[in-house]
Amino acid sequence: MYKLVACWSAPKPDDEAKFEEAYWGTHIPAAKKAPGMRRLVATQTTAGLEGAAPGFYRVAEMHFANLEDLGASEKSPEWHAMRADAGSMIERFGVTLTVGMGEEQEVPLDNRD
Amino acid sequence: MYKLVACWSAPKPDDEAKFEEAYWGTHIPAAKKAPGMRRLVATQTTAGLEGAAPGFYRVAEMHFANLEDLGASEKSPEWHAMRADAGSMIERFGVTLTVGMGEEQEVPLDNRD
Repeated sequence: MYKLVACWSAPKPDDEAKFEEAYWGTHIPAAKKAPGMRRLVATQTTAGLEGAAPGFYRVAEMHFANLEDLGASEKSPEWHAMRADAGSMIERFGVTLTVGMGEEQEVPLDNRD
Repeated sequence: MYKLVACWSAPKPDDEAKFEEAYWGTHIPAAKKAPGMRRLVATQTTAGLEGAAPGFYRVAEMHFANLEDLGASEKSPEWHAMRADAGSMIERFGVTLTVGMGEEQEVPLDNRD
């Protein structure tokens, strides 16, 4: 699968409760409408490596069958609405959003059940 | 699943070919040995949002059944060897590594096939 990985940083929104309210109430519903999307995974990264603070606040992954499907989705009105909402969250909560996209590669684990 | 998300940034290693060689030749084999890990997913993020440059170079996800299993893995000699290798890659290639950990949440998509 080809996916977009979006990291919300860092380390936390100015008002975490209100961010979560906006995230689940408005942003995720907007993201769910992205045409052609196969999976949407949201992870609140509450911990960091070996007891350290996490390097970001949330990670979201939008999975598509391939690059072409993601590219088509980017051109849709639903995508533009989601992006506008992300922009307003960035302004409202003092967060940053860092995005990368690429082909997901499952690494086979040897000798595991 | 409880996962660790590691973002290698930004935007690229000093020597990409040598980074990839070390990543697949040494680092991923070290990561595969982490006790209790259920899934290892590696994504090279070659593109950014809507034609922009990607915000990081690679994302790796290490999946565990729960926080406890990840915590136990962090204490293992295999984990320490992986971390030492990551440290040497950071120094050698001029990259940064940003990590967050949390419970993965699958968002149900309505009206999709």
